[in-house]
Amino acid sequence: MSEQKNRLDLIDLNDYPVSWWLKLLDLGHKIVQNPAAYSEACKGKIMGTLFYEPSTRTQMSFQTAMLRLGGTIIGFDNPATSSVAKGENIKDTTKIVSGYADIMVMRHPTAGSVKAAALTADCPVINAGDGGHLHPTQTLTDLLTLREEKGRLDNLTIGFCGDLKNGRTVHSLIKAMVCFPNNKFILVSTSELALPVYVKDILEAAGMEYKEVTDLEEVIGELDVLYMTRIQKERFASEEEYQSQSGNYILDTRKLSMGKPDLIVLHPLPRVDEIAIEVDDDPRAMYFKQAKYGMYIRMALILTVINGDGASQPLMKGRVHKHIDCSNPNCITHHEKYLPHWFKGDGTTLVCEYCDERTLVE
Amino acid sequence: MSEQKNRLDLIDLNDYPVSWWLKLLDLGHKIVQNPAAYSEACKGKIMGTLFYEPSTRTQMSFQTAMLRLGGTIIGFDNPATSSVAKGENIKDTTKIVSGYADIMVMRHPTAGSVKAAALTADCPVINAGDGGHLHPTQTLTDLLTLREEKGRLDNLTIGFCGDLKNGRTVHSLIKAMVCFPNNKFILVSTSELALPVYVKDILEAAGMEYKEVTDLEEVIGELDVLYMTRIQKERFASEEEYQSQSGNYILDTRKLSMGKPDLIVLHPLPRVDEIAIEVDDDPRAMYFKQAKYGMYIRMALILTVINGDGASQPLMKGRVHKHIDCSNPNCITHHEKYLPHWFKGDGTTLVCEYCDERTLVE
Amino acid sequence: MSEQKNRLDLIDLNDYPVSWWLKLLDLGHKIVQNPAAYSEACKGKIMGTLFYEPSTRTQMSFQTAMLRLGGTIIGFDNPATSSVAKGENIKDTTKIVSGYADIMVMRHPTAGSVKAAALTADCPVINAGDGGHLHPTQTLTDLLTLREEKGRLDNLTIGFCGDLKNGRTVHSLIKAMVCFPNNKFILVSTSELALPVYVKDILEAAGMEYKEVTDLEEVIGELDVLYMTRIQKERFASEEEYQSQSGNYILDTRKLSMGKPDLIVLHPLPRVDEIAIEVDDDPRAMYFKQAKYGMYIRMALILTVINGDGASQPLMKGRVHKHIDCSNPNCITHHEKYLPHWFKGDGTTLVCEYCDERTLVE
Repeated sequence: MSEQKNRLDLIDLNDYPVSWWLKLLDLGHKIVQNPAAYSEACKGKIMGTLFYEPSTRTQMSFQTAMLRLGGTIIGFDNPATSSVAKGENIKDTTKIVSGYADIMVMRHPTAGSVKAAALTADCPVINAGDGGHLHPTQTLTDLLTLREEKGRLDNLTIGFCGDLKNGRTVHSLIKAMVCFPNNKFILVSTSELALPVYVKDILEAAGMEYKEVTDLEEVIGELDVLYMTRIQKERFASEEEYQSQSGNYILDTRKLSMGKPDLIVLHPLPRVDEIAIEVDDDPRAMYFKQAKYGMYIRMALILTVINGDGASQPLMKGRVHKHIDCSNPNCITHHEKYLPHWFKGDGTTLVCEYCDERTLVE
Repeated sequence: MSEQKNRLDLIDLNDYPVSWWLKLLDLGHKIVQNPAAYSEACKGKIMGTLFYEPSTRTQMSFQTAMLRLGGTIIGFDNPATSSVAKGENIKDTTKIVSGYADIMVMRHPTAGSVKAAALTADCPVINAGDGGHLHPTQTLTDLLTLREEKGRLDNLTIGFCGDLKNGRTVHSLIKAMVCFPNNKFILVSTSELALPVYVKDILEAAGMEYKEVTDLEEVIGELDVLYMTRIQKERFASEEEYQSQSGNYILDTRKLSMGKPDLIVLHPLPRVDEIAIEVDDDPRAMYFKQAKYGMYIRMALILTVINGDGASQPLMKGRVHKHIDCSNPNCITHHEKYLPHWFKGDGTTLVCEYCDERTLVE
Repeated sequence: MSEQKNRLDLIDLNDYPVSWWLKLLDLGHKIVQNPAAYSEACKGKIMGTLFYEPSTRTQMSFQTAMLRLGGTIIGFDNPATSSVAKGENIKDTTKIVSGYADIMVMRHPTAGSVKAAALTADCPVINAGDGGHLHPTQTLTDLLTLREEKGRLDNLTIGFCGDLKNGRTVHSLIKAMVCFPNNKFILVSTSELALPVYVKDILEAAGMEYKEVTDLEEVIGELDVLYMTRIQKERFASEEEYQSQSGNYILDTRKLSMGKPDLIVLHPLPRVDEIAIEVDDDPRAMYFKQAKYGMYIRMALILTVINGDGASQPLMKGRVHKHIDCSNPNCITHHEKYLPHWFKGDGTTLVCEYCDERTLVE
């Protein structure tokens, strides 16, 4: 299992250079323009969708993408009723399915699980979310939406509103958008739910302009893009703060009226009440169309991966340290004991290649 | 959301004239005669099947219909394990799926829910049952069965046996059959489970001959069609009545021997014990073939809807009364608060356009 | 229901002669060699997969097989969430599905259930496991693996290791392998988990050489094939015996190093810990490839059954004894009361044609 593969998997967007992303977005654009031209592109191919936790929306998006390419689907979405619940390890299940299928899409609640599966799978693997760790096709969805609707990925003033502390989606999109010049970031949240320091470090390292505010209303007029996210009630510091503050993070038609005419409003969905339903009728509300772009970019991705186009990457770049354990208790290596302990780095700090967590070595 | 669509949805059979039903039955007949001719009629099209409550039989019938037209399927059948359970509203879920799919089939436990979904969906919608309210494809199934097996929809003596009070299926079929001349209705039930007054009013308004009896045996010889339905044990007035009466509503070979040679026996299925299994071997037992006609008429319906053939109908015909609530506590408008309150009528009685319930206005 | 069908179902491999198995294996071989040549062989055909108990691996294998033949799939895998849970009998459910589908694959926890379904189904039926009774496609999988990987089904020394008492898989494969000359069987188990007498009787009746040992290590060097199975911890006589003995039945790289260079290691999967994961990297580890052969042989089987090729068999060979009940409490006839009581034999011993259990008649 220490052998390396040179096959095109998509585990982490950052495994590939920006030029690769752009190629994917170009293909996505072509598909948006003329989906019928791709209706038999994956004829005779089978996609395995292994959803170890239910995610109806993501699963249907992938399934529709494969069907619109002329392919077919096997898989499960409810391990509780599948033999998987009988305690089979991830390796055996994914090994078998990857023998049946031509491409495998996997979602799992544990960080690093999809990379672990890719290590031994017999077909290319796409990460459809590994816990709170990575969800690259959501970021690709956001990038395609921006590029199709704004025409560019640079020179944008982007507002992120809601829970910026816990939102994997927001962190990933920011990490992607710093790769394009002259973007400006406006971060709208309570101080408790502010963007983590490590993401701000990324903004600063990239020399990107950003500011933090607590009130959507005061900045909405500056934005080209407003990316809304959900704040769970229990994330506010107190019931009083919830009552007095939550309204600041809800988009309604009154606030939207202060936005630019060409503003676009995004949301990864599902929403609860952070966007009033009346907003849906405004042409600037782009979140349902965004979901549809998600289907198109997944078509582009499936096609690219199944054809092995582009620069394939070795899955692991460091080496195995047999006697060192990852310090992250939620890392897949603690659940699947047979996995070799791959780490990057060589000094006193190693980075787990499954979950990306740092481990200090004494 | 007050904008009206002019697209072909099938929410309620009564939205369309009898001539439209007949066109559909004609197409159904052609498909029965030569299903292979339609095997690529929906090639490249995707059907979304959103089953908010499980109904394996109905879902498989729709799925088979779509597959036999060369189309493909996405969807869910178990909201408990899907993200839908995370509290997303019907609008958002159906909006997204209708962006992925070319046609959407929906079943939901609440009256008016499917019409609510159709209001904002981006593709045509078929009602596969909204609680106890409507189930138009069951009625279409019954009509195709009658027409194929009896050669006509008029001049038939039709017996309905079982629980005629609570059977949506029976009410709908009666409402359909009064549109054809010289049908005669024989209603076989306990007095507690008799046909509701409002359905008898429809029979009388249409000038149809009908009679009510409590014993199947005494009338079976008169029938061209016997439509059996289930009586649940707890629907009898008492245990004694169940013991003494239930036998009257069970079809066995002895009773069937009194039927005409060209009688046909229908049942919407599933049966429990209201038809003895020995009856299955009688060529007059038509309920399994009826299920197969259900697949054929759904093929005809999918094809018609996806092609937009025929007279499309605006979904809502009245207007929004913002401050009036529907009086039916099970109406979808009480569960999905964002829905505009559409009503037909203008005087003191309004009819809810979702659930068809009357509301008195003071 | 006493009428006999002459249609090609696969309920029990022993319903067909060895020549029929070989024809199937020949077709399996051709498919392995050139799967693309069969990619439209079932175009327009629908397979119904009725899984009354979940078995993700078997279901996905059948589904992939059908998709790789160009066909499509309907079905269920979780009766708890399907209408089937509402108490419909097997006959009605399978009658309806077999009216929709062109071929039906069924798995059910009760012995004889699939044969019961085949009795009234309107399309051919394949047994995907009826409780602990039969699972013919696992045996076909094993046969295809042996033939492809060893080049023959005769002159093989085959070791079976683990729980040989309770393993349906092992019993079926032994029953099949005695049909080929000069095979030698080495049975490795604790004495409590030894092969049942009735299977040893089969070995002896066929004049096959066999021996029983308690230690894998002492015989592994003799084997051409090692068929591993799982021993559940609770099957050992005591905790002490588990501690001291279980290691004898675990295959690791040390033991494997004593095996021949052309040994192949099989396992029906899922494994727990009876094969160390390090063994996977040895080219003699054939169990994942075996799973893939399972897909190929199912392709061959579906194609054969759907085309009705080969010698079809009447399902029932004896006659109905109305007043005799099968002595096996787990026989389907005790759950589905309407089933006619078919038995083979005429004297004082009858054999139930559903579950194959013997019943003594006084």
